[in-house]
Amino acid sequence: MALQPNAVVLLSGGLDSTTTATIARQQGFLLHALTFRYGQRHEIEVAAARRVAAALGIANHVVLDIDLRQFGGSALTSDVEVPKGRSLDDMSHGIPVTYVPARNTIFLSFALAWAEVLGANDIFLGVNALDYSGYPDCRPEYIAAFQAMANLATKAGVEDRRQLTIHTPLIQLTKAEIIRRGLELGVDYSLTTSCYDPDPATGRPCGSCDSCLLRAKGFRELGLVDPVAIYASRGLK
Amino acid sequence: MALQPNAVVLLSGGLDSTTTATIARQQGFLLHALTFRYGQRHEIEVAAARRVAAALGIANHVVLDIDLRQFGGSALTSDVEVPKGRSLDDMSHGIPVTYVPARNTIFLSFALAWAEVLGANDIFLGVNALDYSGYPDCRPEYIAAFQAMANLATKAGVEDRRQLTIHTPLIQLTKAEIIRRGLELGVDYSLTTSCYDPDPATGRPCGSCDSCLLRAKGFRELGLVDPVAIYASRGLK
Repeated sequence: MALQPNAVVLLSGGLDSTTTATIARQQGFLLHALTFRYGQRHEIEVAAARRVAAALGIANHVVLDIDLRQFGGSALTSDVEVPKGRSLDDMSHGIPVTYVPARNTIFLSFALAWAEVLGANDIFLGVNALDYSGYPDCRPEYIAAFQAMANLATKAGVEDRRQLTIHTPLIQLTKAEIIRRGLELGVDYSLTTSCYDPDPATGRPCGSCDSCLLRAKGFRELGLVDPVAIYASRGLK
Repeated sequence: MALQPNAVVLLSGGLDSTTTATIARQQGFLLHALTFRYGQRHEIEVAAARRVAAALGIANHVVLDIDLRQFGGSALTSDVEVPKGRSLDDMSHGIPVTYVPARNTIFLSFALAWAEVLGANDIFLGVNALDYSGYPDCRPEYIAAFQAMANLATKAGVEDRRQLTIHTPLIQLTKAEIIRRGLELGVDYSLTTSCYDPDPATGRPCGSCDSCLLRAKGFRELGLVDPVAIYASRGLK
C-alpha cells in the first residue's frame, strides 16, 4: 500500500474549511489540522473545529494561541460592532470591518512551518473568492503569491527542492456549490459554525451577519434547511 | 513639522535587529517594535529586546507569544543540540539545525498585520545574506517575494493602494560592516545578545555557536572587543 501523503489543513470549524478538509481526505491525504485561537470573541469556533476533526478521524489536531488582540483593528478581535442585515449588494462593495488584518497570511505561515516539519508538500485552505465578503486574502492572485513566496522561504524548498502547493478547492465555487459538494462527500454540517457573532451561551448563530446570510443563501438555493438552526436549538455547542 | 511615518521593526535584541532599528530611527521613522517569545530555550533574547527598545526610546513595544514548540523541528525550539565550534567553511554548506521552519515568514506576517493596523507602509527586518548561516528566509529573493505577496494580502494594499516596503538595510553587509555602521550611529552593543545557547543563569554567550563565532569575527575584523563579553562578565542579563 502506498504511503499516504501528509497535508496540513486549516480548520476553523466553519462550513468552508470543513468541506475543504473532507475534500482533502477524499483525495487520499493524511490530514493534520491546524486551528487558531486568535482572540475571537468566542470559543465556539474552536469547539466546532474539535468536533469536525473528531468526525473526520483527524488524529493530529493542533490548536495554537495567537493573540491578535494586541494589534486590534477588526470587529472579530476588538470591540467594533459586527454589521448585521446587509444586502448581498452591500457585501459586494468594499472590505467589511470583520476583515482581520493579514489573517490568512499569518495562518498560512504557521501551516507552512508545520508542513515543513511534517515533510508535507500540501496545505489546504477553504478560501472562497465568489461569495467571499470582500477579503483581499481570499483571492487567487494572493494565494499564488503566497505559494511563490513559500517556495523560497524554507529549507524544504531550497535544499530539498520540494515544491509546496496551497490547495484552495473552493475558491471558484458559490456557497451552494460548496454545500452540494460537501453533502456528496457526507459532510455533517450540523457540526460546523459560520456565525461572526453567535450567542455565547448557546452557540446559536445570529442569523444576520454576512457569514450567516451567505450560508443561509447557499442552503436556500439548494432547497435545503441549514442543520445548524436545528442543532443550535438543541442548546448544544 | 512633518508627521513622522510609522514603521514596524522586528526586534530580537540581537546585533542585527538592533542595528536595523537604529538605522530606521535615523531615517526618521517612528518605531513600533515587535518581539516574539516563540519557545526559545531562554528568555534572554526577550530581555535584550526590552533593553534595546528602552535605549532607542521606542514607546510601543509588543512582545507576542507564539508557541512554535508545538511543531518542533529546530534546535532553537526543541531538544536538538546547538552545533558548536564550526568553521566558517562548515557554516557556508547547508542549512543548520538552528534553522526554525518558516520563522521569518511568521514574523513578517505578524509585522504585516500590525503595520496595517498602524497605517504603516514600512517594515524593517535585520536579515543578512552574507554572513547569514545559510537560512533560506534571509535571501533577497525571499524578501522580494514576501513583499509582493504582502501587497496583495491586505485591505491597505487592495483598497487604499498603499504599497508596503520590507526594508532590509543589512542584507548585503558583512558582520563587520554592520557593526561599523551601528557604531557610527551610536549603538550600544553591550545591550544586545546573539548567542543561540547562552548560560541560562548569567546570560553569558557560549562563544562557540555559529552566531557567536560570526559576531566575534565581525568585531575582530574591526580590531574591536565585543562589549558583550565584558557585559556578561558583570553577571548582568
